[in-house]
Amino acid sequence: MAALENVLAKIDDNLDSALGRLFELLAIESISTDPAYAGDCAAAAQWLVDDLKGIGFEASLRPTPGHPMIVAQAKAKRPDVPHVLFYGHYDVQPPDPLELWQTPPFEPRIADAETGKQIVARGVADDKGQLMTFVEACRAFKETGELPCHVTILVEGEEETGSPSLPGFLAANKKELEADLALVCDTGMWNRETPAITTMLRGLVLEEVVIQGADRDLHSGIFGGAAVNPIHVLARIIADLHDAQGKVALPGFYDGVFELPEEVGAQWRELHAHESDFLASVGLSVPAGEEGRSVLEMVWSRPTCDVNGIIGGYTGKGSKTVLPAKASAKFSFRLVGAQDPEKIAESFRAFVRKRLPADCRVEFISHGASRALQLPFSSEALSRASRALLAEWGKEPVFAGCGGSIPIIGAFKQDLGMDSLMIGFSLEDDRVHSPNEKYELSSFHKGARSWARVLNALAV
Amino acid sequence: MAALENVLAKIDDNLDSALGRLFELLAIESISTDPAYAGDCAAAAQWLVDDLKGIGFEASLRPTPGHPMIVAQAKAKRPDVPHVLFYGHYDVQPPDPLELWQTPPFEPRIADAETGKQIVARGVADDKGQLMTFVEACRAFKETGELPCHVTILVEGEEETGSPSLPGFLAANKKELEADLALVCDTGMWNRETPAITTMLRGLVLEEVVIQGADRDLHSGIFGGAAVNPIHVLARIIADLHDAQGKVALPGFYDGVFELPEEVGAQWRELHAHESDFLASVGLSVPAGEEGRSVLEMVWSRPTCDVNGIIGGYTGKGSKTVLPAKASAKFSFRLVGAQDPEKIAESFRAFVRKRLPADCRVEFISHGASRALQLPFSSEALSRASRALLAEWGKEPVFAGCGGSIPIIGAFKQDLGMDSLMIGFSLEDDRVHSPNEKYELSSFHKGARSWARVLNALAV
Repeated sequence: MAALENVLAKIDDNLDSALGRLFELLAIESISTDPAYAGDCAAAAQWLVDDLKGIGFEASLRPTPGHPMIVAQAKAKRPDVPHVLFYGHYDVQPPDPLELWQTPPFEPRIADAETGKQIVARGVADDKGQLMTFVEACRAFKETGELPCHVTILVEGEEETGSPSLPGFLAANKKELEADLALVCDTGMWNRETPAITTMLRGLVLEEVVIQGADRDLHSGIFGGAAVNPIHVLARIIADLHDAQGKVALPGFYDGVFELPEEVGAQWRELHAHESDFLASVGLSVPAGEEGRSVLEMVWSRPTCDVNGIIGGYTGKGSKTVLPAKASAKFSFRLVGAQDPEKIAESFRAFVRKRLPADCRVEFISHGASRALQLPFSSEALSRASRALLAEWGKEPVFAGCGGSIPIIGAFKQDLGMDSLMIGFSLEDDRVHSPNEKYELSSFHKGARSWARVLNALAV
Repeated sequence: MAALENVLAKIDDNLDSALGRLFELLAIESISTDPAYAGDCAAAAQWLVDDLKGIGFEASLRPTPGHPMIVAQAKAKRPDVPHVLFYGHYDVQPPDPLELWQTPPFEPRIADAETGKQIVARGVADDKGQLMTFVEACRAFKETGELPCHVTILVEGEEETGSPSLPGFLAANKKELEADLALVCDTGMWNRETPAITTMLRGLVLEEVVIQGADRDLHSGIFGGAAVNPIHVLARIIADLHDAQGKVALPGFYDGVFELPEEVGAQWRELHAHESDFLASVGLSVPAGEEGRSVLEMVWSRPTCDVNGIIGGYTGKGSKTVLPAKASAKFSFRLVGAQDPEKIAESFRAFVRKRLPADCRVEFISHGASRALQLPFSSEALSRASRALLAEWGKEPVFAGCGGSIPIIGAFKQDLGMDSLMIGFSLEDDRVHSPNEKYELSSFHKGARSWARVLNALAV
């Protein structure tokens, strides 16, 4: 561990120069969505290539149909250590509305807050500051000796526009990018004192349903009471989709849903106090999901069904006595564990057909399906990273879930066969995508130290 | 009855001249919705005033903020006979699309069809031809002797635009328009051979419901499963509004709903064969209403609840993983018998509130309410008119219901305290409001004879 102590000391010593480097990167207006800033994106990419070369990485700028990627590689001295692929992105959201920024978004500065020093600039939390925690950890290893793992770094410049070039790039460079484990630094801490490892992402099944009754809109005075109303049929289906306990009523829906390991469940119950805050932040107070589950389970580890949109009949001002010919709704199912998206889509369609009156027809439109992703709780990498974060922060990391999907994690799993370890240091109040985006100086400093500990732990 | 025989013979003798008069009226382009035809509307009104004066009515053209009304009065010799108020309208729908007319819409002609001769022109069935059946009956009485009842004739020129001037006119001329019974000739026969008296109109309660959950739209990945979804809440309310037997589940909803008299129920059951035609005409086959009720009951004499429109969340193309802040629906209740619109609106609001999760708010918007109107089946006028129609057609008239509302009938009841006897001679295939509108010559001829018999029967 003597080597690790040296690396951590080097990170401490380097803090001022590390901030100088980060400020250089933050000053580049790499706004990916606006073609006017394509040159800035290329400049940010080139800055990273140069910096990584400076540490001793073999780094290159790789053209894509959009903004360039960066691929950098460096080997550990020992051949039999794990190979990790680190992913980040250098592009940022537009800074609008500019007038709400206290200082210009691309003129980074250190601000003093009650809770400590903060770095303020567009993209500092999402994702330039986070990305540089990993680079600074690598730098400290190289400056004091050797990397403990083989490291590939992949940085893209289109994350904020949906990563359109990424799937093609992964497919075309599969061999070069293969590794044992992906490391991603684009998520958050549990709170200011408690680190988190995001270990699960829910999957998604998107189904649209169009129910057709009569062959035209009818006058509800003339036909009302005798002709089937597709809105009623759709409402019955939606109402039937949840039972009185808030569980999803599709046959077979919970096949492949696993209960949390007891220690994770216990951890989440301890975090229970978060519930009211989470809902209060959007004007709610009562968890609406399955009875007997905590809010964290509801949004991280339990599957759900939601209607994202519904329309039928007259929806303008006032009234119209129409009995509509059709009604439609968009359904989304969030999946967890080993739930099978295809089986769930099939079960849903059968569920709808079973409730269809003789006089109705139904059309189904699929808008995509993806499995849930879960780093096994028993994974060796997870427990090593967990111990490393405990050593840095003095607190066990929260094994967090993520209710939404992060496409890159799915691509790593499906295209490159890799699990991902998602460790990030941003906080809920970092104002990501908003004016005055900030990143705690402690996140930046202890983030770099955390990566040093994690890389070391993965290799030992 | 000798006098009636003379009147009927006079109507037969007058048929050619009656057609000539009708053609004059049909040739006037009295399109009420288009200001360019205001002069034509006034001309049609003046034509009617002149014609009614010619018969011996005291008739005048009465200005309104829109197109003029006609009020005409003639007394019977005997003072102790009933006083009837006949209502019709001289305005017509625009004839567009013109290219679909086989001959110009305002050049009336007689066409030969397999089923007999037809009069073809815009407005002939709705309502000029129907209106003139009554005028021709009055003419024949006057030409052979005296009217059997005191008769007031009210003809308006704004029926096709929602009768905006009528309520004000009724209020301002209440005394002059009061009568024992209103006669309206703007409805249809049951079929080519069978007359009908429309004895009931359903009432209407219109309620819009807006359900609000969170204070903003949420990401369904982040909040899905924990945050209440207003679309689900609304769907549950809609699903709960009908029980498994198709009855409306609002507490107290059926208070004031009466069963049909046995003879009317039996008549409707005999007409049962109509069911499949009625639904097949719009691509349906299975009655969707209350179990154990015929289609005619469902649309004429039973109350209903329908959702006329619903909207919430994302309704564009593709998918969006939004958990919407609000969802809304427009509900209509068709009322019958003595159902109380205010009580039903109140029961509905309580029903919705009872199903509202703690985290939701609801807003109610009323779009109006009206009672059902029913001519009592035991009414003397109804049985007299019924016998008169049997004598003319050789078939018992169908005591029909009308699923929709006809505002003038409600106004007669509420503002003038009068029941209405709705007898008309149009057929389902008359192409009302469509190109090549027609009216059977037999409807015109036997319609006039029917009114002669009805007026006579009311007085005897």
